[in-house]
Amino acid sequence: MPGQPPEVASALGISGCVLLSRNILRDQRGSVMHGLRASEGAYPIGEVYFSTVMPNVVKAWHLHHRMELRYLCVYGRVMVGLFDDRNGSPTRGVMLKVHLAPAEGEYGLLRIPPGVWNGYRSAGESMSIICNIASAEHDSGEIERLHPNRATWPFDWGHYDMAG
Amino acid sequence: MPGQPPEVASALGISGCVLLSRNILRDQRGSVMHGLRASEGAYPIGEVYFSTVMPNVVKAWHLHHRMELRYLCVYGRVMVGLFDDRNGSPTRGVMLKVHLAPAEGEYGLLRIPPGVWNGYRSAGESMSIICNIASAEHDSGEIERLHPNRATWPFDWGHYDMAG
Repeated sequence: MPGQPPEVASALGISGCVLLSRNILRDQRGSVMHGLRASEGAYPIGEVYFSTVMPNVVKAWHLHHRMELRYLCVYGRVMVGLFDDRNGSPTRGVMLKVHLAPAEGEYGLLRIPPGVWNGYRSAGESMSIICNIASAEHDSGEIERLHPNRATWPFDWGHYDMAG
Repeated sequence: MPGQPPEVASALGISGCVLLSRNILRDQRGSVMHGLRASEGAYPIGEVYFSTVMPNVVKAWHLHHRMELRYLCVYGRVMVGLFDDRNGSPTRGVMLKVHLAPAEGEYGLLRIPPGVWNGYRSAGESMSIICNIASAEHDSGEIERLHPNRATWPFDWGHYDMAG
């Protein structure tokens, strides 16, 4: 579309984790925020759902054995934590923080492949909303959960009031 | 899932327009808000995008010739306006207002078939966010637009500062 910057994919430091830039078209009435188009091809859509997270709350850690996550922060400001503990991964052992904050120019779609530990916290003073355009439907049998206090890797979530 | 009310579909007063109730699972950390699952079957997904609308702003009217809309208000409070002017529709001439406000127990997925005039306004003091899990990708060639002032049907959007 004329006047819009190209949407680009940036590889992150964990194999298979990618941040795709997405455009926000703003005018006085509000905005249109791009999400995901079927023609992008590599993104089967199994379920679209939303997670809200209150200030000073950490929702972590989660590992999906089959679902690929595609996170968009559409309101507020979140810090996503990632840790690669996959057998055979060339980036096994790497931890990453990714900030998503649409009002601050940090709007994008974060693609997280199955097998990567992940979670997020609200990193601002308001609640935050994440949309997951997931590759598969929710299935509690394919999820592992681990409280941040029990993780064996030294990820720093900062001060928080509640986690789980 | 145990403990969750069943999600039900309610026909509205315009043929083909349906409001599907969706669950919100709340806890102290925030919530999970259901959107759409591929297994629901009748909902091919062409594009997922978001529209934000500032207080006292009307985004209307729009008519899509091919895209089926599935609107979810995930933040704020909106009033959606609908008007059926389809040739041969059994409900031709019907106007409707649908309120969507997730924090007030009015959370649902509003399905609007192609050919029905629609639009929305932010109906609260904050901006609002609508997610459209659309049946097709954005194509400006399949959209008609009409300013509320020029509509031939007497829909009342209430007081507003800006429309288009």
